[in-house]
Amino acid sequence: MFEIAPHFNALLVFIEHRYYGKSIPYGGDKTIAYSNKTTLGYLSSTQALADYATLIIDLKNNLTAIDSPVVVFGGSYGGMLAAWFRLKYPHVTIGALASSAPILNFGNITSPYSFNNIITQDFKGESDNCYKVIKGSWKQIEDMAKTKGGLEKLRKSFRICKNYISQGALENWLYTAFVYTAMTDYPTPSNFLNPLPAYPVKQMCKAIDDPKGGKDTFEKIYEAANIYYNYTGNATCFDLNDHSDPHGLAGWTWQSCTEMVMPTDGNNKESIFPPSKWDYNERAQFCKSIFGVEPRPNWVTTEFGGYNIERVLKRFGSNIIFFNGLRDPWSGAGVLKDISKSIVAIVAKEGAHHVDLRWSSKEDPKWLQQVREREVNIISNWLSQYYQSLNEIY
Amino acid sequence: MFEIAPHFNALLVFIEHRYYGKSIPYGGDKTIAYSNKTTLGYLSSTQALADYATLIIDLKNNLTAIDSPVVVFGGSYGGMLAAWFRLKYPHVTIGALASSAPILNFGNITSPYSFNNIITQDFKGESDNCYKVIKGSWKQIEDMAKTKGGLEKLRKSFRICKNYISQGALENWLYTAFVYTAMTDYPTPSNFLNPLPAYPVKQMCKAIDDPKGGKDTFEKIYEAANIYYNYTGNATCFDLNDHSDPHGLAGWTWQSCTEMVMPTDGNNKESIFPPSKWDYNERAQFCKSIFGVEPRPNWVTTEFGGYNIERVLKRFGSNIIFFNGLRDPWSGAGVLKDISKSIVAIVAKEGAHHVDLRWSSKEDPKWLQQVREREVNIISNWLSQYYQSLNEIY
Repeated sequence: MFEIAPHFNALLVFIEHRYYGKSIPYGGDKTIAYSNKTTLGYLSSTQALADYATLIIDLKNNLTAIDSPVVVFGGSYGGMLAAWFRLKYPHVTIGALASSAPILNFGNITSPYSFNNIITQDFKGESDNCYKVIKGSWKQIEDMAKTKGGLEKLRKSFRICKNYISQGALENWLYTAFVYTAMTDYPTPSNFLNPLPAYPVKQMCKAIDDPKGGKDTFEKIYEAANIYYNYTGNATCFDLNDHSDPHGLAGWTWQSCTEMVMPTDGNNKESIFPPSKWDYNERAQFCKSIFGVEPRPNWVTTEFGGYNIERVLKRFGSNIIFFNGLRDPWSGAGVLKDISKSIVAIVAKEGAHHVDLRWSSKEDPKWLQQVREREVNIISNWLSQYYQSLNEIY
Repeated sequence: MFEIAPHFNALLVFIEHRYYGKSIPYGGDKTIAYSNKTTLGYLSSTQALADYATLIIDLKNNLTAIDSPVVVFGGSYGGMLAAWFRLKYPHVTIGALASSAPILNFGNITSPYSFNNIITQDFKGESDNCYKVIKGSWKQIEDMAKTKGGLEKLRKSFRICKNYISQGALENWLYTAFVYTAMTDYPTPSNFLNPLPAYPVKQMCKAIDDPKGGKDTFEKIYEAANIYYNYTGNATCFDLNDHSDPHGLAGWTWQSCTEMVMPTDGNNKESIFPPSKWDYNERAQFCKSIFGVEPRPNWVTTEFGGYNIERVLKRFGSNIIFFNGLRDPWSGAGVLKDISKSIVAIVAKEGAHHVDLRWSSKEDPKWLQQVREREVNIISNWLSQYYQSLNEIY
């Protein structure tokens, strides 16, 4: 957005979602805002969309720019909001770029195995050995943890800081590394969640496949995890007990306990992770215990739709781009086919999570340049169409 | 709807808006539900639309009718809700018939004089004398009220029950008669708000123009009002102090004090009513005094749009019929021109408030039969299109 805004002589407005960053209600007091289910009740996607509508209309009035067209952009949850905003507030925005927006990750539209299946494919695609080593490691960790002194051995193998080891925490720590690396498997070095090299999945598999690593599974897995957690090389040990919230996800816990119920935790037999079933009841119990609320798993599909989206939007709505990179685990719940002439899907086989919205680089591969070019062209067409409509007299 | 539903093998569902009729929240206790601004906070159009979405989806699940297409119908405020429902919940309804829906009666989209101008035209169209007598009567009432014993004379002229006269109450009573008669100026005898003959505006003007009525303005106006208030001939006197709520409008007072701020009270020089300006502050003071709230006059246009609706919906949305009868004072704020191939306006020069939704009668004029035929045809096309989409494989 930063790069194309000047090209369109556009004002770039970044509207922060309430309850995140600096946009804390109740006078900016996060302790009050997050204190209970009543004060958190204003943290919802519907409220956020209404905020955007109010703010944009006000801004246009204040800037004497009432006729200026507005295009909304977003990635991930922000991409869902962008798409939904275009659908719900067509009078406020002329079009939306919804990047890596898993709007079909609700109810039973998308298989709960989809998310981890894509991660599995990402690693399997690099090498079968890489996939097998990771897949086999969970059982080895489990077995080792059961032996006397096994946890301490695991702690040392994975350079976990002293006294901070448990099997579950270690597994979560590794799971996070594989998931986030797959999500951010960008073609150039990046620093989205953690600093990473270009193609970090390939780098992880390289570490695992490296014959110099010997046969020690733990050492191989450690080297892979080290790419995600310690690419800068500054860490001396890893703290599994770190409850700081570097990515500001506290609000998301509430949202995932109310409307954002996205079944993604399933693992089938072929999964790179241990087999498991998505368990709604587990989520419900967790939410009950920490917020005293029960999730509303059907609310998003009631409010925003999702079932039979092609049929519903085939003749309804216009001007939405859905971008998805197929290396992104969220892409399985994205819109991957054109719905109509102006509700289009751009799919990049090699792309990761909202890679199109990242700063461009000279090293960007051709396909990424083309994706961005196509997006700019489509947006230009929306603008031409808008200005033409503006000139027509009814 | 009752007549065409069998034609479509359709289930007819009448969903009552919460806070109206029998759909009172807080366990059905109207006293609690209406007690203050907090309990009334759930009375809003946005909430009603969400209710409809939830209920329809649930109903379809329970009836194992998930693929059955749903068409929504509504007249007046219900017509606004129908149109907005199609725009906001395209995944729940395949189309909407919005009859006499003044969705442009917000902000300054429509002139605040429009409503009373149409009433003026309705009466002026019958006869210039009729218009002049009514227009002149307000000053005469005012003058008479100022004289000693004038109010008592007015009371007798208008057959107002004993002790219940005031100039303002009398004027309101007459204003209501003219407004509601214009709204319900149906081509056949009706009983929508009050029992009325066919073409009641014509009947009122006939009474006013009748040379047998002599020159007494009050007597002429009384005869006209009598058609609205006493067509059955049962009334012996009229109670201006009647605070019963025969049309269940208590909830509307709240809605008009929050989001439903529709400027309709303006009267220019040519108006059949005394000149006056729409006064937002008056509304705000009233709302502050009875509910302790300030209206949000910009909310409806923020939430549902309205400005430049042709431009906005030209390439967005589909499958809405806007019906308007031009004798209906609300029609000035309706959609009177086709917006796109499938967002169409049906306009009946002779029609009154949602006349198309009334029971048909053998006496219905040709134009009304044609309006209904056209509506049924359009809905049939939506259904064909839907079933075709259902059969297509993506």
